[in-house]
Amino acid sequence: MPPKIHQTPEERYVEQLAEEVRRLLERQDFSEFQPFTRDLHPYDLSQIYRELAPEERSHFLIRLHTQQLADMAETMTNREQAGIFENLGPDRSIDVMRHMEDSDLARFLHDLPPGKREELLSYMHLSDSSALRTLLGYPPESAGRLMTDRFISLSADDTAREAVEHIRRSASMSDTIGYLYVVDGNRKLAGVVSYHDLFFAEDDQKIETLMKKRVVFATVAMDQEEAARLIQRYELLALPVIDEESRLCGIITVDDILDIVVSEADEDVAKMGGGGKDIDFDTPPLIAVRRRLPWLILLLFIGLVSGSIVDYFEDTLKQIVALAFFMPMIAGMTGNTGTQSLAVVVRGLNGRKLTASTVWKLLRRELLVGLMIGVSCGLLITVIAYFWQGSLLLGGIIGVSLLATLIIGTLTGTCIPLVLSRFKVDPAVASGPLITTLNDILSLFIYFGIASRFLGML
Amino acid sequence: MPPKIHQTPEERYVEQLAEEVRRLLERQDFSEFQPFTRDLHPYDLSQIYRELAPEERSHFLIRLHTQQLADMAETMTNREQAGIFENLGPDRSIDVMRHMEDSDLARFLHDLPPGKREELLSYMHLSDSSALRTLLGYPPESAGRLMTDRFISLSADDTAREAVEHIRRSASMSDTIGYLYVVDGNRKLAGVVSYHDLFFAEDDQKIETLMKKRVVFATVAMDQEEAARLIQRYELLALPVIDEESRLCGIITVDDILDIVVSEADEDVAKMGGGGKDIDFDTPPLIAVRRRLPWLILLLFIGLVSGSIVDYFEDTLKQIVALAFFMPMIAGMTGNTGTQSLAVVVRGLNGRKLTASTVWKLLRRELLVGLMIGVSCGLLITVIAYFWQGSLLLGGIIGVSLLATLIIGTLTGTCIPLVLSRFKVDPAVASGPLITTLNDILSLFIYFGIASRFLGML
Repeated sequence: MPPKIHQTPEERYVEQLAEEVRRLLERQDFSEFQPFTRDLHPYDLSQIYRELAPEERSHFLIRLHTQQLADMAETMTNREQAGIFENLGPDRSIDVMRHMEDSDLARFLHDLPPGKREELLSYMHLSDSSALRTLLGYPPESAGRLMTDRFISLSADDTAREAVEHIRRSASMSDTIGYLYVVDGNRKLAGVVSYHDLFFAEDDQKIETLMKKRVVFATVAMDQEEAARLIQRYELLALPVIDEESRLCGIITVDDILDIVVSEADEDVAKMGGGGKDIDFDTPPLIAVRRRLPWLILLLFIGLVSGSIVDYFEDTLKQIVALAFFMPMIAGMTGNTGTQSLAVVVRGLNGRKLTASTVWKLLRRELLVGLMIGVSCGLLITVIAYFWQGSLLLGGIIGVSLLATLIIGTLTGTCIPLVLSRFKVDPAVASGPLITTLNDILSLFIYFGIASRFLGML
Repeated sequence: MPPKIHQTPEERYVEQLAEEVRRLLERQDFSEFQPFTRDLHPYDLSQIYRELAPEERSHFLIRLHTQQLADMAETMTNREQAGIFENLGPDRSIDVMRHMEDSDLARFLHDLPPGKREELLSYMHLSDSSALRTLLGYPPESAGRLMTDRFISLSADDTAREAVEHIRRSASMSDTIGYLYVVDGNRKLAGVVSYHDLFFAEDDQKIETLMKKRVVFATVAMDQEEAARLIQRYELLALPVIDEESRLCGIITVDDILDIVVSEADEDVAKMGGGGKDIDFDTPPLIAVRRRLPWLILLLFIGLVSGSIVDYFEDTLKQIVALAFFMPMIAGMTGNTGTQSLAVVVRGLNGRKLTASTVWKLLRRELLVGLMIGVSCGLLITVIAYFWQGSLLLGGIIGVSLLATLIIGTLTGTCIPLVLSRFKVDPAVASGPLITTLNDILSLFIYFGIASRFLGML
């Protein structure tokens, strides 16, 4: 183990909490254990759980309340949740699941093998399991999957006093999100009112006169990224979700969106890195290899195509070995401009639908950029190659090749992800390494093609 | 212009709004204009502004209320804000700025040339400008820069009834975030209470007995990414910010955090793409070139180092031209593993402080991964090279070189960003293209080094 001196303040804090929990559990002092843990945030509880040794964990879990267990489980990964349910046994687990938010539970169930999932659902009350089945029926990564049914809806006809009574009765149902949604007689979404406004309303004021009627909402089938964009743009704390008949069926809260935005960003970076999806600091080596290797082997074969281009131009290369000196630079530069363009497109595409005008504008821009970068770098390398190899013609060949390949590289990095997204192919295919490897092939072909045309003159 | 058929539903919606605004402005029908715009979200107003022609914009702006203008400006980029203030003239602009949130205004002022900034500050009331100067005194990207002073703080000694009275008086001050922070007699942060809890409290219940005492908070100097992490982990809607003396001086709301998380993600992707920082779909070509070119020219020179390695091994290459066939593949593959490792580290480093144990674990993992990937790809390429070139020795040389370079590539991709972050160098330097280009050099050196050792035997 490394010296403790490298601990961050946060790790120290968690260790102190875990130490205290250990002490209380050992002394069997449960009169102190309850108030101590009640004050802790679910995230802190999960950190303590992680800090405890496996044999201490069950003692810890057994002493927590069902709601605490449910809240803690919600902050954990699916694998950790499975570990906890394993520890708790089937009866207690079902009990904890009933206290979890439907969207969190649906995410856990979704990743289970179908047999195991059905078994768990069959243990539940019919009303719980049918709500979950509805949720699991929405497409993955849709707003429907993400929403919670823990919200309070008011009726437009109610008075402020009636609304307060209603809220008081359903207090345990509500997330503390600051808004209350209003529905009409057919459960259709009609407006939104804040606790704050209700606070200052006259007792007999109708909710209808208090509420804002223009509500930003999501539909159950909407992509979660689109829902995230709405929450971000309109600076909302929650987004109501309606079904096909405009009936309010759930809300999405901003904390779920924050998680999504972070994981979408991880996906984008993985895309740029190529195939490294779902690998983090804690992924075991064998799993990391299994996730990276297929991609690298594909790239290896594509890389051999570059080799066969060099092979094809073997005679040219034999006559002027100096051409090989500039090979890595030309291939590398083409890959680099390609990756730069890719970075722009990958983030730009995020949750945005492209119109023809945006695409044309972008293509024109990138073509211009490629041209300007190509001319600058081409001129520079002509001069360098001339002084290095003493031949203006060789310098010119290399400069013109670089100009051509940089334009091609920029366009490849722009077009491939655009075309893929147009045809709804998973844009993860257009990763940085793929663009780089394809640009290798194109650039070598152009370079040797130009060089062999002028071979006689060299 | 492209056919309208490619419009997204959102673009259609904005166009309809803009159409309606145009109609109302043309008819000079301001009795309808007010209620129409009052119902719109600031983001919609900014979308309408963008849709309007330059000559229509001033008519539009002139008809909006100061608070509407302020809210709209907050949803816009600095460049757009400058355009609006230009349009409004100095007096009205100062008025609008006074209605903007301090953190948004500080962001705008921060990007102005110092002379212009001082001029604007000098126009303001002393109390406004000194608050802004304090804000601008915190380091960029700190929690202090991000916080707003529009929040209501309660006193621990107040009763629920007194608290409600206090809230009623300062209603316009509060963001609708759902919580109220509690301070003690020295303005030190003492707890947090939700509107929801206050709602159901007895009139004479002390705030002290209602509040939760364990509050997650940020300090003014804390990095904004760390604040974002706290909000995400603890699923908060707002985070109180305290100064060195533990006094509550502002709050950070989750919508600001969402913006930060998105822009951090953009930075990470730009990092992977290399130097493409701050380039989006709307960046003009010349600016995009200016931001990309310096980086590419640097890479060009580094790429020439690869060339000089090939030059150094010219004799080897002349004797076995077939070595050139595998050059692009070996260099490419080394770059690819490097980029994959980089992607893991870039996201892993996000807002996290590294401990020695994490670093060692990661390095061991990546070394193992490099070894396993190297052995698999090395064996594969040995077989391929043998069948292609008919020489087992050549196959072996290429296989061993690939094994060695893949291990090196993985370690480079892991170590460089870790070392940079350890020495607090802007990790943007460790971009994907830089790692790829460095790996080019290393891999060619290893490849030709191994090949020339075995040259006599070929």
